[in-house]
Amino acid sequence: MFSIGIGKGTKNKQGSWLEAYYPCIWLNPAQSVVDAIEGLCDISAPQGTAELSPSDLTKIIGQCEAGANDAIVLQTLIDADQNALICWMQTDGPIESTPAAYLKLHLLSKCLVRPNALNLDGIFAQLPNVAWTSDGAIDIAEIDEAVLSARLSNQHLEILSVDKFPKLTNYLIPPGVRIADSARVRLGAYLGQGTTVMHEGFVNFNAGAEGPNMVEGRISQGVFVAKGSDLGGSASTAGTLSGGGNEVLSIGEDCLISANAGTGISLGDRCTIEAGLYITPGTIIDVIDEDGQSVKTLKARELSGHSDLLFIRHSQSGTVQCRTNRQAIALNQTLHQHN
Amino acid sequence: MFSIGIGKGTKNKQGSWLEAYYPCIWLNPAQSVVDAIEGLCDISAPQGTAELSPSDLTKIIGQCEAGANDAIVLQTLIDADQNALICWMQTDGPIESTPAAYLKLHLLSKCLVRPNALNLDGIFAQLPNVAWTSDGAIDIAEIDEAVLSARLSNQHLEILSVDKFPKLTNYLIPPGVRIADSARVRLGAYLGQGTTVMHEGFVNFNAGAEGPNMVEGRISQGVFVAKGSDLGGSASTAGTLSGGGNEVLSIGEDCLISANAGTGISLGDRCTIEAGLYITPGTIIDVIDEDGQSVKTLKARELSGHSDLLFIRHSQSGTVQCRTNRQAIALNQTLHQHN
Amino acid sequence: MFSIGIGKGTKNKQGSWLEAYYPCIWLNPAQSVVDAIEGLCDISAPQGTAELSPSDLTKIIGQCEAGANDAIVLQTLIDADQNALICWMQTDGPIESTPAAYLKLHLLSKCLVRPNALNLDGIFAQLPNVAWTSDGAIDIAEIDEAVLSARLSNQHLEILSVDKFPKLTNYLIPPGVRIADSARVRLGAYLGQGTTVMHEGFVNFNAGAEGPNMVEGRISQGVFVAKGSDLGGSASTAGTLSGGGNEVLSIGEDCLISANAGTGISLGDRCTIEAGLYITPGTIIDVIDEDGQSVKTLKARELSGHSDLLFIRHSQSGTVQCRTNRQAIALNQTLHQHN
Repeated sequence: MFSIGIGKGTKNKQGSWLEAYYPCIWLNPAQSVVDAIEGLCDISAPQGTAELSPSDLTKIIGQCEAGANDAIVLQTLIDADQNALICWMQTDGPIESTPAAYLKLHLLSKCLVRPNALNLDGIFAQLPNVAWTSDGAIDIAEIDEAVLSARLSNQHLEILSVDKFPKLTNYLIPPGVRIADSARVRLGAYLGQGTTVMHEGFVNFNAGAEGPNMVEGRISQGVFVAKGSDLGGSASTAGTLSGGGNEVLSIGEDCLISANAGTGISLGDRCTIEAGLYITPGTIIDVIDEDGQSVKTLKARELSGHSDLLFIRHSQSGTVQCRTNRQAIALNQTLHQHN
Repeated sequence: MFSIGIGKGTKNKQGSWLEAYYPCIWLNPAQSVVDAIEGLCDISAPQGTAELSPSDLTKIIGQCEAGANDAIVLQTLIDADQNALICWMQTDGPIESTPAAYLKLHLLSKCLVRPNALNLDGIFAQLPNVAWTSDGAIDIAEIDEAVLSARLSNQHLEILSVDKFPKLTNYLIPPGVRIADSARVRLGAYLGQGTTVMHEGFVNFNAGAEGPNMVEGRISQGVFVAKGSDLGGSASTAGTLSGGGNEVLSIGEDCLISANAGTGISLGDRCTIEAGLYITPGTIIDVIDEDGQSVKTLKARELSGHSDLLFIRHSQSGTVQCRTNRQAIALNQTLHQHN
Repeated sequence: MFSIGIGKGTKNKQGSWLEAYYPCIWLNPAQSVVDAIEGLCDISAPQGTAELSPSDLTKIIGQCEAGANDAIVLQTLIDADQNALICWMQTDGPIESTPAAYLKLHLLSKCLVRPNALNLDGIFAQLPNVAWTSDGAIDIAEIDEAVLSARLSNQHLEILSVDKFPKLTNYLIPPGVRIADSARVRLGAYLGQGTTVMHEGFVNFNAGAEGPNMVEGRISQGVFVAKGSDLGGSASTAGTLSGGGNEVLSIGEDCLISANAGTGISLGDRCTIEAGLYITPGTIIDVIDEDGQSVKTLKARELSGHSDLLFIRHSQSGTVQCRTNRQAIALNQTLHQHN
């Protein structure tokens, strides 16, 4: 069994799933858990969902370690005397339903699986476009009526987003992170311990930071930033969706992509891009040695993934240069200390 | 009759309008609708507002096509046994009241009128600065008391914005759009079918996208982006308000303004600005022919509105160049397909 | 006595402070106020907190000017028959508690003290990381349970931010300001009369704008922008925290940092940085005289704080130049008029 999630979900008036929330989730669950569930519902299909009654949940809780998060969640569901949603996937296959899409997004955000390690085929098709409101998820087809109805009841319905992906924080908050504006991080983002996403930061689904990291720029879908690397305000990592190339970028450790800078190539460790400079794969770059001599000219993509590079645009000649990065990134210790 | 809106509004404690919401709206309404309304209230003034009772609404609904959106909205108001607000404008004249300002903003966001096609004179003066809260619109003069009062009742009052313009989504959600962070799109934005505004996207009032478009950058007041064009993350279109010039920009079809790039000139069709490059009207540009030869040097404003241009800053010489754009913009099909 | 605040706060389930709100606040309070408070609680410690009963508040209100904001707030507390939180600081010493941290943040946002004029030592350590929700402040350790519990009650709990600093607007709205997206301005920001923070604007704590100002860019911690200066969309002011230098920047009067531009040096008055150009302290700059002749070459940090400078990157040579700024910044009058 690849993964199982137990929780609650929201359906529209037609009975179709809008979203699912799994406070209890397993990656490669123990056989005892699988056995317990197998006795309660038919999980022979490659992936599917079912409803579990409080008495069903009592049987599963017997397989959990006492006091563990899973046990606490299941006990809360039992105490509330409510049915729960279960979603299972025998393998990491293409996504065939909304609950399955949410299961995979949870796996990423729970930091159980790293970005680019899951099969996300079908995710766009299986995620309905939802109005995310102060009353929770509402189907787009039902939103006009809901807004008018709220007005007529002297209630205010706040619509925070109209999107296929919800915000991360309404599902879970990874340990040891700060997210200054929760609208900027989608469910499916991977935020390792010690990651701070500032107001201008952004993390897409299937993207993330290993932690600790200071993220004031944009981590595009597929991009993973290793520990100690910082993205300055509005820093850009080129995505593979609209307008981007095909290469999925990665940023190594202890890099700094400065404010308003950007990269279309992967960076190794200890690389710096100066403020305001955007490196695209086709940027022609003068490589400068430690004595300040130009040693060769090449396209940026040839430097993809290399370490200890400093990228600048020479302010007199306008030439984009790559030098050996001898400048350590001095991070504010207090800042990182009190995450 | 230019336009009529029927809905609800919010007043402050002094009885002044803070905002108005028109789920039922007509541009150039049929004479039969005008006649029905004329029998209920005096609409001889060039523009004005009145209150309509449920029985008044019943008379108007008789003029609507059964099952149409207008009829549904009016029936809902009647069923709720509430008076409604009506606002009319005989002509597209200067805005003389808050409800009239909201009527024009609705016309834009309902995609009934394109940006720059309405007379918006007086809009700043007629829109009060409002605290947009989890309890709806509250007058700035009343907000301190409301915050304290909520605290003393162990309630939380969330203040999402303090602005003359509200967010679009609390009034209406145009069909076939996604808006990842609703705080980034003002009422009065025009979002055509298939427009996706990502987290870093922004659309001002009287500005918009024809659709389909991927908007990860900022569409300033007055700017209109034609179908198929994409704005990368933090891409800028220079506005005519603070710090901008006088020319209202337009972006043609199938353009790409890449991440962290910007333009102060209009673009025709199939133009690209490379990542990180900002073209201002005064930027001196080398025009390069298909053989890579410089053919002339001119100011960017002379290229305003031309098609098939690729703008780059040469990474060796630092010279801003304009080349013929032979590179098609490959958009992620799945993304556009599942809007 | 340096400062006193009276209001309400939120504690977690362990009884530790999460945040404090002081609608009534004094900087250097009159001795009569101090005397009144001294009779009610022991304020001999350099800084501390206590609880005040309605009858205590009645004694303090006797020292306030009738009809003043303080008197109104205290009377509201008395009428609600609730105990209040009082926090005092004898001197502007290092911050030793959460309520004291909030007292200093209020002093800044009430515009009673300018950025960089307060001792903020210890602020990161004294501010707990909090989940800011539609139900107010919730301890991170309690948030999983709160989210699940809301789901089981068919309630929606919206988590807007996970951060040490709350948003400004939930505490106070400075007079004469607009804040288009309240998620972008932290408590502790100083926003003078006439400041507009647009959707892409950002103001950190201990940073701000004198007003009037149009802020569409980022004002980093410690940075102060004098009146009449505008920051274009995504404009960056280099901070002293992650990735930044040690110098705290200031921006003089009537400057324009254009869209997607940035500065790592202080600007005097009437300076302009063209769109898309980032000046770092180490940028080598050609200084051009009024006749267009290069007079010298120096590092940008040598120009820090000078007035009447125009920074551009020459679009033919790629050279960063500094010219005398003869172009006045034409601000849209209507815009500034109707703040």
